[in-house]
Amino acid sequence: MTKWKRAIPNGTHDILFEQCSLKVDIEQTLRGVFRSRGYKEIRTPTMEFYDVFSFNGIDEEKMFKFFDHRGRIVVLRPDMTIPIARVIGTTTTTLPLKVTYSGNVYRVNTSLKGKQNEVTQTGIEIIGVRSLRAEVECVISAIRALQAVGINDFKIEIGHAKLYKLLKTYVEMTEEEEKTLRTCIGNKSYSSLRQFFQNISSHAYMEEIELLKSLPRLFGSIDVINRAKEMTANVAIHEALEEIRIIYDIVEQLGYGEYVAVDLGMVQNIHYYTGVIFRGYAEQIGEEIVSGGRYDTLMEQFGSSQPAIGLALQVNQLVRMKYGSNEALRPSEEVLIHYQLSDMERAEIVAETYRTKGVVAELSPYELLDETKRYAREHRIHTIIHIEEDVHVYEWNSEWVQKEGDDSGTNTNSIDEREIVG
Amino acid sequence: MTKWKRAIPNGTHDILFEQCSLKVDIEQTLRGVFRSRGYKEIRTPTMEFYDVFSFNGIDEEKMFKFFDHRGRIVVLRPDMTIPIARVIGTTTTTLPLKVTYSGNVYRVNTSLKGKQNEVTQTGIEIIGVRSLRAEVECVISAIRALQAVGINDFKIEIGHAKLYKLLKTYVEMTEEEEKTLRTCIGNKSYSSLRQFFQNISSHAYMEEIELLKSLPRLFGSIDVINRAKEMTANVAIHEALEEIRIIYDIVEQLGYGEYVAVDLGMVQNIHYYTGVIFRGYAEQIGEEIVSGGRYDTLMEQFGSSQPAIGLALQVNQLVRMKYGSNEALRPSEEVLIHYQLSDMERAEIVAETYRTKGVVAELSPYELLDETKRYAREHRIHTIIHIEEDVHVYEWNSEWVQKEGDDSGTNTNSIDEREIVG
Repeated sequence: MTKWKRAIPNGTHDILFEQCSLKVDIEQTLRGVFRSRGYKEIRTPTMEFYDVFSFNGIDEEKMFKFFDHRGRIVVLRPDMTIPIARVIGTTTTTLPLKVTYSGNVYRVNTSLKGKQNEVTQTGIEIIGVRSLRAEVECVISAIRALQAVGINDFKIEIGHAKLYKLLKTYVEMTEEEEKTLRTCIGNKSYSSLRQFFQNISSHAYMEEIELLKSLPRLFGSIDVINRAKEMTANVAIHEALEEIRIIYDIVEQLGYGEYVAVDLGMVQNIHYYTGVIFRGYAEQIGEEIVSGGRYDTLMEQFGSSQPAIGLALQVNQLVRMKYGSNEALRPSEEVLIHYQLSDMERAEIVAETYRTKGVVAELSPYELLDETKRYAREHRIHTIIHIEEDVHVYEWNSEWVQKEGDDSGTNTNSIDEREIVG
Repeated sequence: MTKWKRAIPNGTHDILFEQCSLKVDIEQTLRGVFRSRGYKEIRTPTMEFYDVFSFNGIDEEKMFKFFDHRGRIVVLRPDMTIPIARVIGTTTTTLPLKVTYSGNVYRVNTSLKGKQNEVTQTGIEIIGVRSLRAEVECVISAIRALQAVGINDFKIEIGHAKLYKLLKTYVEMTEEEEKTLRTCIGNKSYSSLRQFFQNISSHAYMEEIELLKSLPRLFGSIDVINRAKEMTANVAIHEALEEIRIIYDIVEQLGYGEYVAVDLGMVQNIHYYTGVIFRGYAEQIGEEIVSGGRYDTLMEQFGSSQPAIGLALQVNQLVRMKYGSNEALRPSEEVLIHYQLSDMERAEIVAETYRTKGVVAELSPYELLDETKRYAREHRIHTIIHIEEDVHVYEWNSEWVQKEGDDSGTNTNSIDEREIVG
């Protein structure tokens, strides 16, 4: 019965100490950037009714499901954008509106090649704005947020949901075949793609199908927009490509050109995207750190037809990137206060003078100075403040050395505790 | 199929805008206090194996349960102390150790008289310290944390798990009867308690049973310790009472006497408590805002026998208390930047000068100044910065008034954007 007492479910993790503080600090930094840009905060429940997520292209078998006490199907939210759409669609709020959220999402990954079943996303949504200003605002916000946490080695790729969605209509195929095609293009598997078109019933030459076949190769610099345009005269395709170009140009003008690229072969697994889509990668870890896009039809499901766009930052990946770096691990300055319980009032006063200066001041759990010294060593604390009648300071320097001038016999009653704070 | 598309599960809530920011700010303030006292941070997964929580007195029917892909029973964590015990028991760490966590716990409440099924707890645990220093540290940390979020109208009651646990052994009763007794005492239902002892097989006079019957009346000032001592000579009971007295006295000496009280009739539903227990209430809302206690045997289950103590603050209740107060709702200073997309670079530069001063600076989603003005009104933003060749500032004062001196014809190229900031 207690076989799994000391284990945790697949794809979940305990996050401890410095790494944990780093993670929460990163979330707070992102939050600060988004709030300073006018985004209002939202938190939604961890569990939602299954119905909220139906018809949005989230794989059935990827959702953690259970029954509530009334037999309704409840899921651990597999996505944050859909719950935000539900909130805005069912609440009386003034639109347009910018919102920001931070929280965990849950997906069942049985294969688990390092895949997480619980990941933290901090993101933004702009609801009620149809113009490309919203696209630009999203990209700039993401760049600013990543810079604020000290991440500079990344690229946000810009694609467009309409490219694949329009071009695929020129191919006669089953739903199953369409899935295969999407995977081939999304993974840029040229050989599988060639094979796919060999198997599909042959067509006369059609420029849209030629462009579709070329999508996985059309990524990188802004030049691919022109290359794509040359391949077809299709007006809707030209419009989509123009949107990408406009956004790219503005972001470049703003001096952020190094952070953006184009990927016309980008396809998202989630169906709700209708326009420009984003995906950000960090060179260092080769993992997706940003994803999002425009979803102008999602809100209809929740009773309020509104254009909308958003993106999410993958906090766990940002932690991975920062946790390796030295700057992230700079420990807080820390002192340990040794005191007798009868002297605790003074101990707290001394401790507070340190805390107000941003120094961690911990009260020793021990009565005996030797035990306090051992505890300090084990926790790598280099300063002990010993509260007796006088206040003594010990610094670690291969051994504990009592600092000169601190045992000057100042009287308990006359000592200005603030003076001892170096 | 989509009947529950726009609803959320019972006992859950969306938290929006100012209230949401207040909640996250409170969590961050608590976190800051605990970190400054030397607590190290931990986050554990939202889902845990059922086995982790078995045998700890958490009601079966109160846990959200489901199966993972291998058929193992998984629960949404109903408690944070047990997962922390699991982590520390199964990880190589240096003990003693102080840890702090913040996260949601989940309980099925079908009755739902305002009961929440998902609540946020920020708490602390001290693992590896047997002395009462840990008890005092817990109480002081909680008081400091509540003060830091501006809450001063509360009482932390101190009780002792051994009182009820020892005294009940003097009564012969079934498990079912014991549950009833615990409820009578916990709820201070004098009449039910009298009835209970009428129904139970009668005993000869026994001082322990008389004390047991009196427990619900023994709360309030420190005097109840003496009253209880006079009722029995039982050594174990005297020891437990002395622990409460020592803690109370130190806390009072520290100048926090107004925040503590004694409740000898306190019983916890969770079985793992072995010593001093805490419960904090806020006068204003009549709800529990703090709970915890010593649990010296819990860690054994996870392979590491260690004394331990901790407590949790109920963040949702703290939000309720603060959300009513005016100070909590002081909105951030906010400006709206009106600009043409071709001028976005300057708009961002101007916006950043505000943001670095702690002012929220939002870029307008609109091309037309009139639309920007309407948007500002609807979002109660009182200042518009209009970026043209010159920079104009509009302030709302029953109507939009262009501020003097800002349209002084300074040239785009020569303007020092920093000068225009307030």
